[in-house]
Formats: sequence, structure tokens, C-alpha cells
Amino acid sequence: MNQDYIKPDSWSIIEEGFDANRIKSSESLFSIGNGAMGQRANFEEQYSGATFQGSYIAGVYYPDKTRVGWWKNGYPEYFAKVLNAPNWIGINVLVNGESLDLNTCKSVENFKRELNMKEGWLSRSFSATLPNGIQVEVFTKRFLSLDLDEVGIINYEVTPLNADAEIVFQPYLDSGITNEDTNWDDKFWDTTHVSHLNNQAFIEAKTMKTDFHTCTFMESKVYISNKPIIVEHNVTADSNHVSFSYAYPVKKGEIYSIQKFGGYTVDRYHDKSKLVKAAKQALKTATKKGFHQLLEGQKKAWANIWEMADITIDGDVKAQQGIRFNIFQLNQTYLGKDSRLNIGPKGFTGEKYGGSTYWDTEAYCIPFYMATKNQNVARTLLEYRYNHLEKAIENAEKLGFKNGAALYPMVTMNGEECHNEWEITFEEIHRNGAIAFAIYNYHRFTGDYSYIPEKGLEVLIGIARFWQQRATYSKDKSKYVILGVTGPNEYENNVNNNWYTNYLAKWCIDYTLEQIENVEEAYASDFARIAKKVKLTKKELALWKAVSDNMYFPYSEKHQVYLQQDGFLDKELISVEDLPKSERPINQKWSWDRILRSPYIKQADVLQGFYFFEDQFTEESLERHFDFYEPFTVHESSLSPCVHSIQAAKLGRMEQAYTFYLRTSRLDLDDYNHEVHEGLHITSMAGTWMSIVEGFGGMRVKDGKLSFSTKIPKQWKGYSFKVNFRDHVLKVNVTQEQTYFEMLCGEELEILCNDKPLVLESNVLKAVS
Amino acid sequence: MNQDYIKPDSWSIIEEGFDANRIKSSESLFSIGNGAMGQRANFEEQYSGATFQGSYIAGVYYPDKTRVGWWKNGYPEYFAKVLNAPNWIGINVLVNGESLDLNTCKSVENFKRELNMKEGWLSRSFSATLPNGIQVEVFTKRFLSLDLDEVGIINYEVTPLNADAEIVFQPYLDSGITNEDTNWDDKFWDTTHVSHLNNQAFIEAKTMKTDFHTCTFMESKVYISNKPIIVEHNVTADSNHVSFSYAYPVKKGEIYSIQKFGGYTVDRYHDKSKLVKAAKQALKTATKKGFHQLLEGQKKAWANIWEMADITIDGDVKAQQGIRFNIFQLNQTYLGKDSRLNIGPKGFTGEKYGGSTYWDTEAYCIPFYMATKNQNVARTLLEYRYNHLEKAIENAEKLGFKNGAALYPMVTMNGEECHNEWEITFEEIHRNGAIAFAIYNYHRFTGDYSYIPEKGLEVLIGIARFWQQRATYSKDKSKYVILGVTGPNEYENNVNNNWYTNYLAKWCIDYTLEQIENVEEAYASDFARIAKKVKLTKKELALWKAVSDNMYFPYSEKHQVYLQQDGFLDKELISVEDLPKSERPINQKWSWDRILRSPYIKQADVLQGFYFFEDQFTEESLERHFDFYEPFTVHESSLSPCVHSIQAAKLGRMEQAYTFYLRTSRLDLDDYNHEVHEGLHITSMAGTWMSIVEGFGGMRVKDGKLSFSTKIPKQWKGYSFKVNFRDHVLKVNVTQEQTYFEMLCGEELEILCNDKPLVLESNVLKAVS
Repeated sequence: MNQDYIKPDSWSIIEEGFDANRIKSSESLFSIGNGAMGQRANFEEQYSGATFQGSYIAGVYYPDKTRVGWWKNGYPEYFAKVLNAPNWIGINVLVNGESLDLNTCKSVENFKRELNMKEGWLSRSFSATLPNGIQVEVFTKRFLSLDLDEVGIINYEVTPLNADAEIVFQPYLDSGITNEDTNWDDKFWDTTHVSHLNNQAFIEAKTMKTDFHTCTFMESKVYISNKPIIVEHNVTADSNHVSFSYAYPVKKGEIYSIQKFGGYTVDRYHDKSKLVKAAKQALKTATKKGFHQLLEGQKKAWANIWEMADITIDGDVKAQQGIRFNIFQLNQTYLGKDSRLNIGPKGFTGEKYGGSTYWDTEAYCIPFYMATKNQNVARTLLEYRYNHLEKAIENAEKLGFKNGAALYPMVTMNGEECHNEWEITFEEIHRNGAIAFAIYNYHRFTGDYSYIPEKGLEVLIGIARFWQQRATYSKDKSKYVILGVTGPNEYENNVNNNWYTNYLAKWCIDYTLEQIENVEEAYASDFARIAKKVKLTKKELALWKAVSDNMYFPYSEKHQVYLQQDGFLDKELISVEDLPKSERPINQKWSWDRILRSPYIKQADVLQGFYFFEDQFTEESLERHFDFYEPFTVHESSLSPCVHSIQAAKLGRMEQAYTFYLRTSRLDLDDYNHEVHEGLHITSMAGTWMSIVEGFGGMRVKDGKLSFSTKIPKQWKGYSFKVNFRDHVLKVNVTQEQTYFEMLCGEELEILCNDKPLVLESNVLKAVS
Repeated sequence: MNQDYIKPDSWSIIEEGFDANRIKSSESLFSIGNGAMGQRANFEEQYSGATFQGSYIAGVYYPDKTRVGWWKNGYPEYFAKVLNAPNWIGINVLVNGESLDLNTCKSVENFKRELNMKEGWLSRSFSATLPNGIQVEVFTKRFLSLDLDEVGIINYEVTPLNADAEIVFQPYLDSGITNEDTNWDDKFWDTTHVSHLNNQAFIEAKTMKTDFHTCTFMESKVYISNKPIIVEHNVTADSNHVSFSYAYPVKKGEIYSIQKFGGYTVDRYHDKSKLVKAAKQALKTATKKGFHQLLEGQKKAWANIWEMADITIDGDVKAQQGIRFNIFQLNQTYLGKDSRLNIGPKGFTGEKYGGSTYWDTEAYCIPFYMATKNQNVARTLLEYRYNHLEKAIENAEKLGFKNGAALYPMVTMNGEECHNEWEITFEEIHRNGAIAFAIYNYHRFTGDYSYIPEKGLEVLIGIARFWQQRATYSKDKSKYVILGVTGPNEYENNVNNNWYTNYLAKWCIDYTLEQIENVEEAYASDFARIAKKVKLTKKELALWKAVSDNMYFPYSEKHQVYLQQDGFLDKELISVEDLPKSERPINQKWSWDRILRSPYIKQADVLQGFYFFEDQFTEESLERHFDFYEPFTVHESSLSPCVHSIQAAKLGRMEQAYTFYLRTSRLDLDDYNHEVHEGLHITSMAGTWMSIVEGFGGMRVKDGKLSFSTKIPKQWKGYSFKVNFRDHVLKVNVTQEQTYFEMLCGEELEILCNDKPLVLESNVLKAVS
């Protein structure tokens, strides 16, 4: 753990006391978002200390020119990166002509931030003495509206405490911003028009190259003692900045406040020539409701989210805080409204990983959204990939594949690959399998088969074609092998026969063949349409089947385990326990070749396969593989501990399961990896949810039935979660003694508890010991 | 073949006719160099068409900031690159006020270039009609003096043909130059002083970051009809440019000419505060001798080089031209005078590969220099590595090695690694073996053991330590394996048990153990000094021996061949012959993953081992391995065909040997790979020499005796070469009927011819049928 300044609280993230060294970390931790935009917890007023400014608009990215030492054929020309959007939150504050800046104040007292997760707002309060001796008390509250998702609202109050003072609020918009990422020498926003009228201002700007058109807007109102007043304002404007000045002689003890409504309209949702008009409309709606009514709406909207998504943990407030933080951030990042958007690994909290889509979405996030939202949201995530199928086929063609084979990109914004390390871009191809698995998982959980004939089958066929072509027939082994891949364990590159990849490849082909049969039989017209479109032939299916039937899986008779890859047993098998602490994390201490030839595993690899396809392995086999691989696993990916927690819980090793759970649940709050200043680990937060629901709760779907096998860490009194299963909403409440099932919504439902049938009726609590 | 405009000529490279599309290629092909500096064949006068300007000073480089998408621990911060040095050759020419520029002339006729390899000069002649209608005839000749290696000399003659004309010569110096390589946004020369006095000018400039101080200088004299005249000149100077103007009213048919003496003095050889003084001294010496005397000296110096290094080929003028071009360029690049210098893969002819040192020097160049110069030159090349030993140890430490293990860099200027692809930088470790092999090879050829106790043993110990630590004990195989390497075939990355690397590793340890024993016995005080310095222990030697004795070598019983690496037989073994031509070269057509999982071999890998250690394998075994691997070899490295040519010749397959020979000998002249505009393949030129001497001539050293087994391609009438073997100079002349041996210098010597002893006496020709 690298920090522990966040106060334990069941519903809020709270920081007390001003510490300039924590600013960047807190800017990440206190980020707010509403699915359409996000905002790091930067101060509204000027701050001259170290800060990482970040305002983000969902789906607005920039193609950073690929820069690698040695170009490889097939590399993308551009790496799409999230980019810092124009600042709409800024409100500079002058007190008797002097700028309020916490970095230069004589003293800062009673500094407190609160991110209220229950109601979805961020507040900050402090008193500060400026160099000129005036002491002011400040209270701010802001939120990004869930109801009006183009709008954010700030209430900013200043009270001079020791003297009357002329206070000036200078709300502004600024499109002359830069990115934190140092590679960016380029200017990337082209500001086309800066305008203002009365209390409103607008900056129209478009991204260079990607040509996303946006309008950043604001409208401000000022108050004395919470009563609106009219203050004549001055305007300063230049080519990428507009600022209003509201000066007022404030009496000692009197509250002078400003409400700033701001945000973005973007051409994803409006005609690009009408962005100012749309902004005016958004402001009209927002100001008509006003701060308080919008805040009430915010509370209600978050109450609705929590109603379904909340997990309670009894007897461990830090664990409670941790899991809610995860659920809160996932909902701030993605709400499933727009199939053009997805879940970036850092959400709206930082720039790293480019804010783009990885296989994290399919492997980790979809289960969360399926169970806590509804099938439409999950289906929207699947459609994201369907909409990118054509580009995945193009991507595969670039690498020499043919006949409609699809390779989904490792990292993408718009369907195009935008990553350029050959060992990842070209070789971490298991991602393709996760995309097929998500289709299976969606059907398994929701029971909705319609997606497959409508869209999913085309995706599956593209993926199956890829695997058939990617496999190589080894005369030496008389088997199909898959050479030169990087598995989920990115600490091995360009290996042969990564078991997970081979297994997934075979499974993809088998599953696709099965779906082809199903669709042909039950959805004949869909089948005819698809077969014609993708030019499917029986001959081709035979080729797939040959690969699937003869896939090679590296196996050790001696250890009775599948080998992570052909060469694994040649490694020096020293367990992590015996590795000096000073050598870890190995990704910071060791050169890459040393990591590669070591046995150390960055994240679940063989065990990821056992997680995806657990029905196909016995518990003994799981245990053997767990015992073989876990000792070599360094968990230097945020996506590793959750899978291990789930597997350990399944094996009844609750102490171990709990230890893994702790590593994932407060990863960011406690800043385990000393990198929270860069942003939060959004996708791994879905893994934390899985650790509780699938790990401790043991939730599965077995033959179309929801199934539980609940366990509880001894450190907790109890925990509860809810699941939306096929329009039945269940609450599962686990105590040390019993598990209670309650169906909050929906008709009678038979579930399984510890593999025994249990019939739930609406609103009848059932207890199982 | 991509071009055929070079006229066949046994001693010269000749181009006739002006073609703007050939300018960059010719600028490479007609490059001149003298070991201390080099100059692409850029025009002296202004040229506004496409050109690649290049003037290079040996050992003056610039640390280009490493730019990779994804940083790895252990990467060097900087990539050292050769840099374009200030221009000293420029002479702008004005004819009636209009600039002579072949790109804008109305017509250019009788354009001819000649690079006279016998005498070491470059000439150019043409007549051109300027836009203003004046027709001029131009003749230029220039060379970089071998005798005064800081000086180059240009004679530039202009004759107005159709009218009297005022002609202005504007010789200039310019340090405001850029590099061709587009990554270089930086300014890298800091010009500190521009000065001039009478007909001399000086630009003092230092490289930024590396702080190499240089003075670029010039002095000019003008002539009418070859008679010196005094012309008042104007001077223009600014912060990085100085130019003189010599205007003269020239009569129709009269020759107006300028002799420009120029070049560089550098702080490698002079106190940095005295570079101008040194330049003045150089100019004094040069101008005192004058153009003609210097040219005579040049002819003599080249005659001396050819006397020893020439290879004649009878009955094939293109082959003759090709081999001489190779020998000429090698001598232009490196003459063995300074152990701080080495042989960059592009010499002084371009920027690619950074002008740095690769394992090419040890594997390919040393044999050429040993046989055509003397043991001092070869020893100087060995010392280069000895002087870098400390940095090689530091380099290994960065990668986690200990106790004095040394890993020589893949690419270097000053001993530091300056390459940053992990699969090469960290994994192409066989380079370390080539450096040990060169020590062995030096002793084998020269018989001079003294280098080993003096310096070589320390290098060997560092290398042996590296191999011992780099090997991993595989419990599964009960053998030492070497995991995660890239062999000479760079079309496989991060493979396990590359046979060549494993073999070399074992050989390095065995050879070092042997030398430790020898030195301990015969050079006790050296041994004591070294053992103390490197803290050598008996215990350590036992560890080495364990690795050597138990090294694993992948082998196929079925094919009876050593496998290039563990996974080779799993590949789809389709021979190059069966690969459509449209797919080649695969490095331009295929993505990297596809190349990696293909069986295609970029350059000799297993066969490189058979070449280095041929005594240790039977000819049957060589044949089996040749027949197994050659069909998969695409020779997309310029270093590949020569090894294959030698091996084919050994196997008596002269047709094949000759085909391989052709691919290497005129690689640049015929521009096989369509890249000659970037510069020449200098190090592979040494391979061409080996193809003849070791391939066709079958030269070896066997038990301290020089041995030959001569063959001749049926396309040739005869060929001859000379060898300096332990102060005996032998000439070997091979015809279709017989081989003639003649000892031109030295006492009686017993050699082997076709494994039979043959005693040579001074100046007695011996013929063997």
C-alpha cells in the first residue's frame, strides 16, 4: 500500500487536510463522470502547483502519430489517444485583486474533499489566508448530470472571514489546453469560433485530423447570501479563451457565490453547424431547472443505479468503501447508452492506455453490466464489435489473412488497430477469442439467442476463419499448432502453443460450428442472408473442423498439467515467494529478456481458461493447475487477482480468496502500484465485482438456471448483492450463518443453491444454511 | 537487379548520361573515403533536384534520443547515429550571374562520372546550357588524400563554349546542414566560430551532447588555362556559413578553374583549442604539395593497397569490377590506423545503421583485413573491443548479470549499447560469441598468441561468464538451455535453444577455459594480473564447465540435423522455391508475426556455425544441413549469400556457389535490393572477398599451415588473389587448368594444397593441377 489518506466511509471518498503531494492522486480518485464526459478533480480556481488537468469527452480522440524505432509491416499509422478537452470548469477567484491559489496561500485549513458516491457529486471546502492577509472560506460542489448528460454544474461559494473584500469570480472556457503525455508536441484542437452573449459563452473547436466538432459552453449566475444578484461583468476573449469577470464588494462573513453551468455539445449527437444552438438549448434546460433541482435529479438517478448495482459489506467499512468505489466508477464511465462508446481502461480519469477499448470489456466488464443493468446494455457492448467487424477483417487482411478472417484490434477507438508492439499487436491474438466468448456468455446469461442470428454469427464466422488460418499443421506433431503468440501472460512473448490461446481457438471454432447449425435450423432466412454475405461454404467448415479436432495442447505428464506454452518447463521454476522482494515488481526491476525467460506470470493465463470454461474441467484439475501456476504469478496486471480470487473461492480457500480480493478492491484507493495519479483502473473494477458475485457468491449460470454457491470471508459479518437475471431481480444476502435469497422483481424462478434447486417467489425471503 | 547503368570496366565505376532519377544512387556508388572521412558523390555546385547530402567524419556521432512506443528497462537512452558533417566541398558557380544547376539547365550533355578505383579519385564532366543560353563545359576531379587524411582536394574547371562569360566560383563551407534521417528534428551542430583570412576559411563547430570539436576548413586557388591568377574575392559570412566569390571574365573556349583544398581537423587528434591551427598546418602542407603532387601520392598509396589486396578475375569484366569495387570501398572505410574507429555497415556512404559497429566486424571483416593488411590492423580491431570491455560489463549489469559478465552491445559507437528493439538488443546475444571467435581466428591466422595474455583473455572471461549466467538449467531436460534469444536469423525472435547460439556459448566457455590454462602455464605473470583484476576463482570455472558439458542442442533424429531452434519443425516447411515471387522479399510484404512463424531464414544461422567451426563437422553433415536449411533461406540480409557461397564451394557445388557469389559481389552496383541510394553495404563486401578467397580459393588455416583447395566457376578464365600470411605474401592464381602459387615475399613456407604439403620458395612459381 502506498497511501492511506482516504478516510474510511461507507458511501463517500473523503480526504482531509491539504497536501500538495497528493494533488495528482486525488485528482484521479475524486474524478467524476456521467458516461458522456468526465472530469478529473482539478480545482476550479487557479492552482500553480503540480497538477494533471483532464477533461474528457467520450469517444473524442486524437490520432497520435505512431513513433517506433523500427517499423514493422502492418503497424497502424496512428495510435488513437484520448485527449484533454477544453476546460469548462475554470473559475478564477480574485480577492482584493489577488488570485486565490492554494499553492501560494499563507495557510490552508480545514481542507476537505468528499466524493459522494451515493448521490454522485464532489464537494470541496477549506479556509485559506491569501498572501494579502484576507482569509476566505470556500465551499464548492459539482456534478456531471446523469439526466442532462451534456451538462455539468458547479456551485462555488466564497466568504471573506476577517475583512470586507472585493471578490471577483472569473468563470472561463479555455481550448488552449495540452495533454499530460509528453509525446504530444502537436496542437490538437483547432478553435474555430469563440463567442459570448449575456452570461453565456461558447468555444467551438474541432480536433485536428479526427475532425470531431465540439462546442464547450458556460453560463454563470452570481449570488449574495444565496440570493441571485445582477452584476455587470467584463468579458475578455481571445482566440481560444473566453472569461467573464463578476466583481462584488463582499462584506465580512457574507457568502458570495457563483453557479456555473457548463459542458459540451458534440457532433456525435448534433449537426456540427448547430452545436452552439444545442449548447444554448442545454443551458436553457439546465438553468431553468437550476442547481438544486438538477442535484435532486442527480440523487435520484444515482439511487436508481445503486438500487440495482449496490453491494453491501457488513463489518468492514474499508471493504464497503472499496467495492462501492469500483461500482461507482464503472457507472461513471459507461452506461450503455451508445454502441459507439466503450470502456477505456482508465475511463475518464487519465490518459494512459489511450482511453481505448481492450479485451477487458469482453472478459471482465460485460458480466458486470449484464447483471447490474440489463441485457440491452450488454448487447450494446456486443454491437460495438459487430459494428467493427469490417475493420477487423481489414486488419486481418493487412496481416495476410484471407476470405473474411477477422482479427479484432488489441486496442481501438473506431475499429482500427492503434497499438504498435509487434508482440502484442500481431501476436496477442487471444483477444479475438474473448470477443467470441462474450457472445456465448451473453446468451448463457440473458437467454437471448436473437443476437446470434441477427449479428453475432457473422462475428463468430470471422473469428473462426481467423483461427483456422492462424493454425499451422505440424508434420512433426501431426497436430495443428499455433506458433508465435503472446498469451494473457504478457511476460511471455512470441511463444508457441500458448495453451489458453490454443484452447480458445478450438473452442471458438467448435462454438461457431454449433451456432451455424443452430441458426441454419432455426433461423433459416438469417442463415441464408449470412451465408450469402460471408460466402460460407461446407468445404470451409471441414477445414475448420480439421483444425479443431486436431488442435495441439502442451501437457506435462509429470506434473499432470497443461503447459502455459511449449517451453514452460525449461524455465527455472523458482516460485515468487523465493524471489527477493527487492527484485519486485519485476516489470520495474528487470530487463525484458529476463522477464521473458523467467517463469513469472503477469496475470492469469491457463487459469483464465479454467475460468472461462470451468464446466470442461474437474475441480481436481483446477486445483492442480492453480497449485502449479499460482506460485509463479506476480499479479503485475490489475486484471490478475480477481480471477485468482474467484478460483481460490471455488476451491474453498477463503483466506487466499480474500487476500486476492483485497488486492483488487482497493487497488486505486490505497494506490498499491503507485500510479493512481495517472488515473484509475476502471476495467479491473469489474473484476472486483466478479470476485464478490462469482467468487464469494459463486454465481454461475448452469443449464439456463442461475446458480449460487455462497461463501464468506471470516473478516466480514455479511454481504449482499443484487442480480438482474432475465428480468428477475434477485437480492442475495450472505451472512456467516446463512444465505438469504429474495426476489425483488419478477415471476417465480427456480435457481440452484449449492447445486440444489430452490424456487424463489416474488418478495419471499428464503434462507439457506 | 534494379539497375544496370554502371558501365562495365575493370578498374573504374563509370556512369554516362545525366539522369536526375539516378542522382541519389550515384551519390552512394561514387562515394569516396580515406578511413578518416568520407564524402558522398554530391555535386560541388548547386543542385536543386533530389539529393542526399553526406559528408562524414570517422567516429563523430550524435546521440539521437531513443524513441520507442513502449519503453523497456535496460534500453539505452540514446541511439548513437552517424551525422552529416559540415560541407567542405561546395563550390557554387555563376555564369553571367546565373547559377549553374544541372536541375535547371536547358540541356546537359556528355555527362560522365568516373570513380577510378586504381588511383582513388572521382571525376565528373559534362557540358550544359544554362537558361541564359551560355553553354559551358565542366570537368571536376576530387579525392580524399590517403597521405594527408584530413584533406580533400577538388579541381573544378569551367569553359564557356559559345560566348565569353563572367564566371564566378563561390567555394564555401557550411555547418548549417541537416541529416537525411527524418527523425532528426534537432539541430546537432553548434557552430562556435566562423573565420577567414586571405584565401582560407574555417568553421569551428562542435556536436551537441557528444561534444566532438571540429574545424572545417578550405583554401582556394584559381587558374586561367591552368595558370594561377590572382583574383580579388568577396567574402560572405554568417553564423554557420562562409563563402568566397572569385569572379572572372572568361573568354569563350578558355578554361577557368579552381582548386579547393578542404577537410576537417578534429579533437580526436588535436587539442580542441588548436583545431584552426592544425587546419592551417594541414592546408600549408597540402597546398605546398599542390593538386598534382597530391594526386600522384594518391595513386601511389592506392597502388600500395592494390598491390596486396587486389583480386583479378579473368574473362568476366563485371565480376572484376564488382570485386574491386568491394575491396576499394572496404579500404575507403577503414585502414586500421586508429583503434577507436571501426567499420560501420554503411561506411561513409550513408546514415543508415548509424555508422556504428556490429558483429559484422568480427564475423566478416577481420578475415579480410588480416589477409590483405597485416596482423596489426586485425589486432587494432580486437583492441577496439578490449577497450570497450568495461562498458560491456556495465551493459550486462543493466540486464541483471553479475561478477564481471560482459555483454557486448549489438550496435555501438563508444562501447555503449545504442539499439532498442528488445528482441535484438537483449536477445541477439550471439554477437558476444563472434567477439570471442575473432580472438581465436586472429590467433589461428596470425600465429600471434601475445594478444591473449595481454588483452584477449579478459574479454574471453567476461564473455564466458555471460554465457554461464545466461544459460538456464532445465530440470525437464537435465541440460542447460538458453532461452529467449534471437539467432543470426533475425526472422525468428525470442526462441529457445537457437543451435548456433548454444553452440557458440559452449565453444566460448571451452575456448576460454583452454586459454586460461595456456596463459596460466606460459604467461604466469599475465595470468596473475588478470586473475586478480577479474577475481577469477576455480569454483567459478567449475560452474562454467558444468554449463559447457551439459549444453543442450536441439536435434532431429528424423532429419539427422541440428534444429535451428526448439520449435523449428513445427513450422510449415514450404521451401522458398514454392513461395510465390509476389510475396518476396517477405520483409517488405509480410507482417512480422507471419515472418516469425514462417520457416524462412534471413541469413545463415546453423550454417554460420558450420562455417565458424567447420573442423568440428564432417562434410556429410555439412551437406545434410546445407540441404535442409538452404531451401528455406531468403537471403534478405546482405551477409547471407557469402556464407552460402563458401559452403556450396566446399561441397563442390560450383554452380550454386557462383550464383550466391553473384548476389553478393554486385549487390550495390546493380542495386539488387533497391536501396543503394541510402548508402553501400560495406561489411557485406568483406563477405564477397571471403567468397572468393575462402570459397573458390578454399583458403583455410590448418594446424598453423595455410591451406588451399581451389575451384573455379566455369564462367571465368581465371582469378588471382594475394594473402599476407605471417609476413609471407602469397599470390594464388587459379585458371581452369591449374593453380599457380607464388610467394612474393618471405622465407620458404610449407602450405597445403588439397591437403597435400607444398613447399613454396620466394618468387618460385609452383603449379598444381
